[in-house]
Amino acid sequence: MAGNSFGTRFRITSFGESHGKGIGVVVDGMPPGIEIDPAAIQLQLDRRKPGQSQVTTPRKEHDQVEILSGVFEGKSTGTPIAMFIANRNQKSGDYDQYRDIYRPGHADFGYDKKYGIRDHRGGGRSSGRETAARVAAGALARLLLEARGIRVQAWTLEAAGIRCETCDPSTVEKNPMRACDPSAAEKMLAAVTALAAEGNSAGGIVECTISGAPAGIGDPVFDKLDARLAGAMISIGAVKGIEFGVGFAAARMTGKADNDEMDGKGFLSNNAGGILGGISTGEPISFRLAVKPTPSISLPQKTIDSDGREQIIQVRGRHDPCICPRIVPVVEAMAALTLVDLLLATNETIG
Amino acid sequence: MAGNSFGTRFRITSFGESHGKGIGVVVDGMPPGIEIDPAAIQLQLDRRKPGQSQVTTPRKEHDQVEILSGVFEGKSTGTPIAMFIANRNQKSGDYDQYRDIYRPGHADFGYDKKYGIRDHRGGGRSSGRETAARVAAGALARLLLEARGIRVQAWTLEAAGIRCETCDPSTVEKNPMRACDPSAAEKMLAAVTALAAEGNSAGGIVECTISGAPAGIGDPVFDKLDARLAGAMISIGAVKGIEFGVGFAAARMTGKADNDEMDGKGFLSNNAGGILGGISTGEPISFRLAVKPTPSISLPQKTIDSDGREQIIQVRGRHDPCICPRIVPVVEAMAALTLVDLLLATNETIG
Amino acid sequence: MAGNSFGTRFRITSFGESHGKGIGVVVDGMPPGIEIDPAAIQLQLDRRKPGQSQVTTPRKEHDQVEILSGVFEGKSTGTPIAMFIANRNQKSGDYDQYRDIYRPGHADFGYDKKYGIRDHRGGGRSSGRETAARVAAGALARLLLEARGIRVQAWTLEAAGIRCETCDPSTVEKNPMRACDPSAAEKMLAAVTALAAEGNSAGGIVECTISGAPAGIGDPVFDKLDARLAGAMISIGAVKGIEFGVGFAAARMTGKADNDEMDGKGFLSNNAGGILGGISTGEPISFRLAVKPTPSISLPQKTIDSDGREQIIQVRGRHDPCICPRIVPVVEAMAALTLVDLLLATNETIG
Amino acid sequence: MAGNSFGTRFRITSFGESHGKGIGVVVDGMPPGIEIDPAAIQLQLDRRKPGQSQVTTPRKEHDQVEILSGVFEGKSTGTPIAMFIANRNQKSGDYDQYRDIYRPGHADFGYDKKYGIRDHRGGGRSSGRETAARVAAGALARLLLEARGIRVQAWTLEAAGIRCETCDPSTVEKNPMRACDPSAAEKMLAAVTALAAEGNSAGGIVECTISGAPAGIGDPVFDKLDARLAGAMISIGAVKGIEFGVGFAAARMTGKADNDEMDGKGFLSNNAGGILGGISTGEPISFRLAVKPTPSISLPQKTIDSDGREQIIQVRGRHDPCICPRIVPVVEAMAALTLVDLLLATNETIG
Repeated sequence: MAGNSFGTRFRITSFGESHGKGIGVVVDGMPPGIEIDPAAIQLQLDRRKPGQSQVTTPRKEHDQVEILSGVFEGKSTGTPIAMFIANRNQKSGDYDQYRDIYRPGHADFGYDKKYGIRDHRGGGRSSGRETAARVAAGALARLLLEARGIRVQAWTLEAAGIRCETCDPSTVEKNPMRACDPSAAEKMLAAVTALAAEGNSAGGIVECTISGAPAGIGDPVFDKLDARLAGAMISIGAVKGIEFGVGFAAARMTGKADNDEMDGKGFLSNNAGGILGGISTGEPISFRLAVKPTPSISLPQKTIDSDGREQIIQVRGRHDPCICPRIVPVVEAMAALTLVDLLLATNETIG
Repeated sequence: MAGNSFGTRFRITSFGESHGKGIGVVVDGMPPGIEIDPAAIQLQLDRRKPGQSQVTTPRKEHDQVEILSGVFEGKSTGTPIAMFIANRNQKSGDYDQYRDIYRPGHADFGYDKKYGIRDHRGGGRSSGRETAARVAAGALARLLLEARGIRVQAWTLEAAGIRCETCDPSTVEKNPMRACDPSAAEKMLAAVTALAAEGNSAGGIVECTISGAPAGIGDPVFDKLDARLAGAMISIGAVKGIEFGVGFAAARMTGKADNDEMDGKGFLSNNAGGILGGISTGEPISFRLAVKPTPSISLPQKTIDSDGREQIIQVRGRHDPCICPRIVPVVEAMAALTLVDLLLATNETIG
Repeated sequence: MAGNSFGTRFRITSFGESHGKGIGVVVDGMPPGIEIDPAAIQLQLDRRKPGQSQVTTPRKEHDQVEILSGVFEGKSTGTPIAMFIANRNQKSGDYDQYRDIYRPGHADFGYDKKYGIRDHRGGGRSSGRETAARVAAGALARLLLEARGIRVQAWTLEAAGIRCETCDPSTVEKNPMRACDPSAAEKMLAAVTALAAEGNSAGGIVECTISGAPAGIGDPVFDKLDARLAGAMISIGAVKGIEFGVGFAAARMTGKADNDEMDGKGFLSNNAGGILGGISTGEPISFRLAVKPTPSISLPQKTIDSDGREQIIQVRGRHDPCICPRIVPVVEAMAALTLVDLLLATNETIG
Repeated sequence: MAGNSFGTRFRITSFGESHGKGIGVVVDGMPPGIEIDPAAIQLQLDRRKPGQSQVTTPRKEHDQVEILSGVFEGKSTGTPIAMFIANRNQKSGDYDQYRDIYRPGHADFGYDKKYGIRDHRGGGRSSGRETAARVAAGALARLLLEARGIRVQAWTLEAAGIRCETCDPSTVEKNPMRACDPSAAEKMLAAVTALAAEGNSAGGIVECTISGAPAGIGDPVFDKLDARLAGAMISIGAVKGIEFGVGFAAARMTGKADNDEMDGKGFLSNNAGGILGGISTGEPISFRLAVKPTPSISLPQKTIDSDGREQIIQVRGRHDPCICPRIVPVVEAMAALTLVDLLLATNETIG
């Protein structure tokens, strides 16, 4: 059942639970001689950490990364880089009431059926906290991409039913929703806050663009770029769908409208989202993700306990009313990890 | 760049091109002692083959499967089962005009950039014909699932903008659109035929349901059931998006509305599509796929050749005006392959 | 139980049985644009085929390779290259008597215990004939190595207790034992022939040298060059041991005697066999293999049948009295496959 | 270049350096619900740790294991178990003189050629200290094997040219050589101590036996039990050769002598070492390993520095004059890890 590694050439292996000692990751395949600035890793972790604003959980987690191996005198050595983020301020007692009860919309039921035992504290391994490992590993992947001029950026495109009407990526980090339209961001914030006040939560859509990637990335027929990105993104807890380029809208288009024609200057459109036949075309790679509303809500819900008895649950505690802003860096991290792994494969050469 | 294997426990390796000698697949991991009826494989290949109706290409491909290894006296031996489907009736000459030109919406451009050489005949390796290998391998996976009472079925939910209003799975194989609503099927057929007459094509949505799967399938955090299904589905050429359960609609729902509550009889809804935390819950697993319109259209389109010169192309030949009906068995095959691979992982035991 | 793939970057997947339709292999990861001369593949298969001399089985197998995919206009396209070697002249009837009996020294017993079913004809999947797939795939790997100036050569160092006293690699292909000492070869031949006349068989030692390999190949700590070579070699049926450099003799040496000292011109000795810490040093890579005597002998032996009844067996048929000469090309093939896979890994680069 | 994972079902990922923060390992695939007694892990680490006797380095390393994840209320949860062994008492200053010089017989040269950068302190990643991770992970594998009645035991069969004449496994842990013959152990100790006094070191042979393993383990044709064991063992730094059963002696045997005949009570001999055709037969599995003499010796040796200048080196510090006793638990660990990984594969079932 070993399912905690991602990638073949740039392989990460993740471990840790929400309320155990901490979260960690081993990155195997980092090329040697790369300057590893812990601040670059910490920057990404800080974007993911809770307690950033009123739409993120007020839990304070410092999420301080410690590099355990693979870096010598500030540079990667080509050996595995292990990183650890100790858990602090975890209040396990908060979760005692959920020891034997399945929180609706959570992984509790599946974990119990699969493993017959589970660390119920904060969701244990199924907690969103696990994504800290992805973000730390992704920060290393980003170093490699940036050196090559490849930029990965994601943002909240929609939340609580409010969609960005414009999209200016430079505004994303300036609003707590990480939306690409500051005016929509304000409306989102109001809507999400109102839902939170009711003890409810909101879903949304996150969009990601990768620019500067060369043509030729992706390995048909099973390790296509879009296939690997899809697997990576859907492995993020709250993500329930992905579409590339025009995506589901293509279902209602004709071939003439959907095909990206070309002239001497290049593609005349990018309905394909930068990927044809599973291989990057050199155009910006773009996809959108369906993010479900946070399942932890304090409204009363029907559920059962592990003995099958009916229960009413109100999930108290400190939860994000909309997870989109904090998923943004996780999406970027998984995109970077996927891209680096496939780039290394694409550039394999014998001599 | 080796990307032609799928799965770890039930691993398939695919090979072959549209206009080469044939298409083949090696299935490694088939348990021993299973009766292998070639007719069961042929049945699935016949569902995928061209020339079935007016909405599939009139090319006649017999797609006759030959088992090359791994079966002895009618039973699997536990050794690799190789299958080969010889190409017949291929008219390579039809494609000479496309040797140096990039067909819009096709993989031609990416393959040229990636490999610097390509078998242009019928798309070579990037042809949809490659999926015959998946269907043949999937037929073996289905044998295992059926013996365990797990049923995988897909259908066309929407085509050319027409959506099924009811859904009766028993009607799917009785209409050429493989739609789950016979009356919608007729309208789809008319709309697709009209587009074909103009030299154009239509997209659609394919839906897939897996019933009878036990709770506990999927290996967090990267080999989650939905993550693996997403990677499998997006690796199918024309698929540009996937959503599980309510999918993108979840983005506009609240936590209260989206969460699947439970009572003593089980889940009260299945918005999650049978998967929570990446693990099956025992509910029907369901997802929908965005299928782009067939890129091969005879309307004039702008493109370039491999020297960068502007060209006008009209893709002649025998093409499916809507690929949905023929993608249905491919989707089922990939779902079955994913499921078997994860079931074998889930059931690993030491003693 | 899927165990029929070797390699990650240059991945081969083997299939087929001794008396089924044939033996085949899919090579995934061959770089594009390489001229594929079928004669180069056939040359290696001819070195492995039976019936070459009085110390190989008189069975005539043409072992004609057919390329099924991945080559277009004489060049590799970067897509999987499948090859098939049809079985001919197989006399399955010869084996009917072995359907339910375990031949001593053969895989029969283990296969029966593992799979509960087996293709008994000629050993089925456990036949040495399976190595034809390795040799065909290895021929492609050799093309890549030769273009880079890396040469892999193996020979019989010892057979039937007679050891080469000199070693001139240029003589290897000129004697039926593939020994590196023509005069020892004659004695080996006489000894092996005498054993064959008695209905018995002989073991031996095969040595392999890889020259021209650059320093830096091998990925510690588990994919070390020597670890991967050891796994590859021991996967060959008759090989029961491997030693690198001075090998087992190192057990009786002191550190001072064993360590390869260096001066300005390089290493002063090569006791390590060209590998230190699992990484190639640029010195010739060398190892030796223990090859067990052919288990198929016509002398009477005690055994049991699948019902546990005691039997006396005399294995009739056409068998190699010493397998060393025919293992030589298999060893070279596995060495080439291992080296290419690790070279591709070693040369991975992001930019 | 990612080469720090071993296994597919029971996959371990190792990290850490000799003089960095510590050594660690992530074990992914541990079944849930198993009692994890840290003392069982510590016991194995204590068998490997330095400073146990006069034939091991007098360096004191406490090698205290810390479990970072995957265990809840004393039991495995089915999620990754990460373990960390902090480095203490490391005197990095001792190694400053080796920053730019290649110690003969060490990995220094290869690492420099491969990575262009290396942590020279105590060999960094190439240090034998890395094997602590293997031993910790192996301790978990042993828990699974023991519950199934499978026992893995290794011992020193030969050291400094002195070979055990009898073999009583119950004596192994009672002498500092971990030899299976107490009287030979005394002679070994004297010989090794004498070499150490001269500033020299000794090699030896380690033997390993696995008893209680059922027939059927191993996945032909590449993941054969012996192939996987060989790869595992040769990945241990000092191991330069492996032979199964009679091993290299088979080269001089006839088929009649080597074949293990059977009667109604079972095999009449075990020349094959418990493995036929790559599959366990149910007989004890046995193999022997060539262990080279410790390369760190204080006798003067010729070498070069990273600028190619000739140097004379005398490796000072605290080193094992014979590594056999401390390799014994590493061999057992790698055997256990290999066996569990293949057992999980062997037992895969769909239903």
